[in-house]
Amino acid sequence: MTDSPFHGVIPPVVIPLTEKKQLDLEAFERSINRMIDAGVDGLFFLGSSGEVAFLTDAQRYHVLQEAVAIVNHRVPVLAGIIDMETLRVVDQAKRAKGYGVDALVATAPFYALGGPKETERHFRAIREHTDLPLFAYDLPVCVHTKLDPTMLVRLGKDGVLQGVKDSSGDDVSFRWLVLENEDAGHPLQLLTGHEVCVDGAYLAGADGSVPGLANLDPYSYVEQWKAAQAGDWNRVKELQDHLARLMFLTRVVKATVGFGAGVGAFKTALWQMGVFNTNQMREPVQALEGEDVAAIVEVIKKAGLMDADAPIRK
Amino acid sequence: MTDSPFHGVIPPVVIPLTEKKQLDLEAFERSINRMIDAGVDGLFFLGSSGEVAFLTDAQRYHVLQEAVAIVNHRVPVLAGIIDMETLRVVDQAKRAKGYGVDALVATAPFYALGGPKETERHFRAIREHTDLPLFAYDLPVCVHTKLDPTMLVRLGKDGVLQGVKDSSGDDVSFRWLVLENEDAGHPLQLLTGHEVCVDGAYLAGADGSVPGLANLDPYSYVEQWKAAQAGDWNRVKELQDHLARLMFLTRVVKATVGFGAGVGAFKTALWQMGVFNTNQMREPVQALEGEDVAAIVEVIKKAGLMDADAPIRK
Amino acid sequence: MTDSPFHGVIPPVVIPLTEKKQLDLEAFERSINRMIDAGVDGLFFLGSSGEVAFLTDAQRYHVLQEAVAIVNHRVPVLAGIIDMETLRVVDQAKRAKGYGVDALVATAPFYALGGPKETERHFRAIREHTDLPLFAYDLPVCVHTKLDPTMLVRLGKDGVLQGVKDSSGDDVSFRWLVLENEDAGHPLQLLTGHEVCVDGAYLAGADGSVPGLANLDPYSYVEQWKAAQAGDWNRVKELQDHLARLMFLTRVVKATVGFGAGVGAFKTALWQMGVFNTNQMREPVQALEGEDVAAIVEVIKKAGLMDADAPIRK
Amino acid sequence: MTDSPFHGVIPPVVIPLTEKKQLDLEAFERSINRMIDAGVDGLFFLGSSGEVAFLTDAQRYHVLQEAVAIVNHRVPVLAGIIDMETLRVVDQAKRAKGYGVDALVATAPFYALGGPKETERHFRAIREHTDLPLFAYDLPVCVHTKLDPTMLVRLGKDGVLQGVKDSSGDDVSFRWLVLENEDAGHPLQLLTGHEVCVDGAYLAGADGSVPGLANLDPYSYVEQWKAAQAGDWNRVKELQDHLARLMFLTRVVKATVGFGAGVGAFKTALWQMGVFNTNQMREPVQALEGEDVAAIVEVIKKAGLMDADAPIRK
Repeated sequence: MTDSPFHGVIPPVVIPLTEKKQLDLEAFERSINRMIDAGVDGLFFLGSSGEVAFLTDAQRYHVLQEAVAIVNHRVPVLAGIIDMETLRVVDQAKRAKGYGVDALVATAPFYALGGPKETERHFRAIREHTDLPLFAYDLPVCVHTKLDPTMLVRLGKDGVLQGVKDSSGDDVSFRWLVLENEDAGHPLQLLTGHEVCVDGAYLAGADGSVPGLANLDPYSYVEQWKAAQAGDWNRVKELQDHLARLMFLTRVVKATVGFGAGVGAFKTALWQMGVFNTNQMREPVQALEGEDVAAIVEVIKKAGLMDADAPIRK
Repeated sequence: MTDSPFHGVIPPVVIPLTEKKQLDLEAFERSINRMIDAGVDGLFFLGSSGEVAFLTDAQRYHVLQEAVAIVNHRVPVLAGIIDMETLRVVDQAKRAKGYGVDALVATAPFYALGGPKETERHFRAIREHTDLPLFAYDLPVCVHTKLDPTMLVRLGKDGVLQGVKDSSGDDVSFRWLVLENEDAGHPLQLLTGHEVCVDGAYLAGADGSVPGLANLDPYSYVEQWKAAQAGDWNRVKELQDHLARLMFLTRVVKATVGFGAGVGAFKTALWQMGVFNTNQMREPVQALEGEDVAAIVEVIKKAGLMDADAPIRK
Repeated sequence: MTDSPFHGVIPPVVIPLTEKKQLDLEAFERSINRMIDAGVDGLFFLGSSGEVAFLTDAQRYHVLQEAVAIVNHRVPVLAGIIDMETLRVVDQAKRAKGYGVDALVATAPFYALGGPKETERHFRAIREHTDLPLFAYDLPVCVHTKLDPTMLVRLGKDGVLQGVKDSSGDDVSFRWLVLENEDAGHPLQLLTGHEVCVDGAYLAGADGSVPGLANLDPYSYVEQWKAAQAGDWNRVKELQDHLARLMFLTRVVKATVGFGAGVGAFKTALWQMGVFNTNQMREPVQALEGEDVAAIVEVIKKAGLMDADAPIRK
Repeated sequence: MTDSPFHGVIPPVVIPLTEKKQLDLEAFERSINRMIDAGVDGLFFLGSSGEVAFLTDAQRYHVLQEAVAIVNHRVPVLAGIIDMETLRVVDQAKRAKGYGVDALVATAPFYALGGPKETERHFRAIREHTDLPLFAYDLPVCVHTKLDPTMLVRLGKDGVLQGVKDSSGDDVSFRWLVLENEDAGHPLQLLTGHEVCVDGAYLAGADGSVPGLANLDPYSYVEQWKAAQAGDWNRVKELQDHLARLMFLTRVVKATVGFGAGVGAFKTALWQMGVFNTNQMREPVQALEGEDVAAIVEVIKKAGLMDADAPIRK
């Protein structure tokens, strides 16, 4: 372990909306406080689960301004600066800094095609324009580039990057990253974006996790991290099995696929659990309804996040 | 043929930069005038070749403001409103309209994962916020979604879309699109994004083309369109073979891949031909150098776009 | 044009089965004769449409033995020697030669991962073991490797390959292949595997086509080839539009996808047209039924391949 | 744990060749005995690492005949029956059974495109023709289909499958599989094909592993399995880190990619360690040479599998 403040459970914060599809400040504050009270070690705003792709710049910075005020230094705040290519990302970096965040999270360039030279130059160029801690966000399912572990560690040693959020799903590559980072003196904080294989990532040597599912059950993820720190691997695995079964809620959705099924199921569960006031989504995604809601409720009741005899909210 | 003003050769305009990587207004005007004088039927700004992904919003609208002023109604101006998801695209649409463009060009949503429902809703949501003609931009290599011909024609019949720029490289799908569009009464203007198979697309029934290579040789593309209109297919093919050989300039680059090799080669050729003053690129892409420049010069000399004994510009 | 015997329309022969899923010799002979009588320039057996992946070796060579006997030198016979890696393909090559075929058709290696070195060595190794004309079969949708045009022409100049069947759907790459082949003195016969963009491929310079749809309508493909030879491009396009509309029969299938929908629709049409006695498929694919059959019949009636008032065969 | 004989460490056996690229029986026996003496729980022949794609049928059954004789019932023998589609796989199944193997391992169909219906029917059709235990081999990198966990468990409950070898690299899907299999009463033995994330798979509940790297270091994998059974997760992870660093030998190869780099590096290491007499490969793959051999030797020396001062074999 290093003395970096970025470790442990750092949920990517899901955004509650009102019926009119505006930021629901009341639910936002409730959900943030619920996670901090549960003991999370940080919060990540404007990630993929945090609707970053769906928000105008004005909406993004409204979220960030409110988030920083609500968190009020209780835990570190990380902010996604997600945009297509370097100059647009640098713009986001400058603006996010102005809102008082503690670290920035950037993907490789996307949309235009490039190669490893462009990816590496991209992160170096961002560093030239900001002094905040910078995490690389490895998310090939959205970005269509897999970040190379050797390049990441090189950028760590050069002071360009301070960490990685690995949502690649490529656990072999993550293992290379852990070992190369260790050999280099641990310049990078390595956070797994897994939700259902966090136990294996901790065993492999991850410094923390960024699970969207922690919006629903922050308690279990916090307990799991503590168990991992204590070397109680049977408990780590037991909690993971519980969380994996809870994650089934994303597998029962039939109306759509992708973000609408995944984050849509999270919002629906948080609504049914009383944390959110609605399960509204941003355009062009539609809120889940009917049978999908019922199926999600069944999963969260089975996992003990909702009373077995509680009625379905409409 | 319909009476739509959007047909024939509509080049996606490549952006010249100064040594300091700023918009080179002098070269921009020269290049635009050169294409209009050659007889192109329209100009498309802020497309993929037009660096849309690489520009901040401020830079995008600087390009658009200057473009509209230089073109000055001589030909229709189409503007890319390229961003990740619906609300961001709507923002771009509103802003682009304010600059006086004649049509908008939007891709499917990207970054967040979605399905066909979200794609169709996306275009309908854009239409709810603008009254300008709207083209769907089918570019799976950047957007990672292939637009379904049947959906496109349905959106055409419903007045949501007025045309398609097909850069999918999927000529079978383009054929379905042409036939279904014909059966529906031709609601869509169908433009191919091909550079080296424009002849086949015209034979199949395309209403025009959007070839980046027309920045280099607008004359041949204009002549090719006229030959196609006249049914002189041997001439159409002959010009295509010339243009395909010219396109080899993107195949000789060794330093990088993707945008840096493709648009990088276009800029390098335009610089060597004296249309541009440099071959500068936006971050994180680097300008081509040395052997790559020499190889590109060899191709354009062979194609007759540069005197055989002209020296290489440094 | 070269003096190679491999040019013009060379259908990949679809295999008729009895109710018990055995080779239906009567229908096989009828279908082959129908295509030869229509004027096709060759026949390709054991291609992807010809069930090569679905047949045991014993079944493959039963097909080939009967095919060679039925064709009886009226047109050249090409045989697919499709298997995973080099030694298995060489085995197939030796065996196919024993049955008296006129040319062999091989893909790149598949299943095990390799790179361009292995692909090139593969074709050279096959050549070391056979003296028959050899075609490379470019079919990335099945083989997951795209053959590089420059490599193909190099293998042509070296006498390893005598032709290419391009089913890549990548018409830009096909154009590079045509131009590089021309520059090298035309060592390769270039056949397009397109069904609905054959007109563009002919205009680009293809030496022929291998359309599965020619099993249904060999007449139109033969007339199209003749029109192309005569430079009557309007007729070429007109026939293509007819054939493209006929190809809609593969787009109306709902029960399954892939081979079962594509070749399944071909077999269903041939059955309904009275050329085949059933529409049986090999395991694990199931024959199309019910609504899918009705939808296919509607397409072929509209295209004039079946009388408008003919009943659906059961 | 069930009472199935298929659990623990079951290496996929790498095949040694003579200089003339024939099966090297002496080295084959030495390598097999070395693994059995180290305590492995089974051996898997004719898997992807076992050159199944590269061997003619005659060569495949030569390998199997010798393997069964050498193993001589000391551990269970699993045999790959890898071929393109159902009837070819059934042929392989019948033949493999004749050689006295204890279980069969089959992939989904490949080459021809299909959907989930065809995949499920495929496994059911194989079961109709054999009574041996049958494992599904999930290897999307070669087969280009990902097996669905819910389908696999359904086939387990129906007695079609007795186990799964999961080489998908998709650890989330593997977790679903473990949980659904548990809920169904553990009909399937679940073996991970991981080499560098076996610790996480054991923690998740895998019944064993099939690591190619165990050809080099069977001792560590056997010890790791025992440590996992004993719940000594720190030791499991420690051994995994050692094995992961050993696996770097596949990352230092520069001459090629894929099978030639991966299995090529394994063979080169086994040759340098004195287990194999050469590092020969089957066509079209070439044996590694020069700098690649030196780099591999460096890795295995660092991992303690070769004396630090031992010379490189030529």
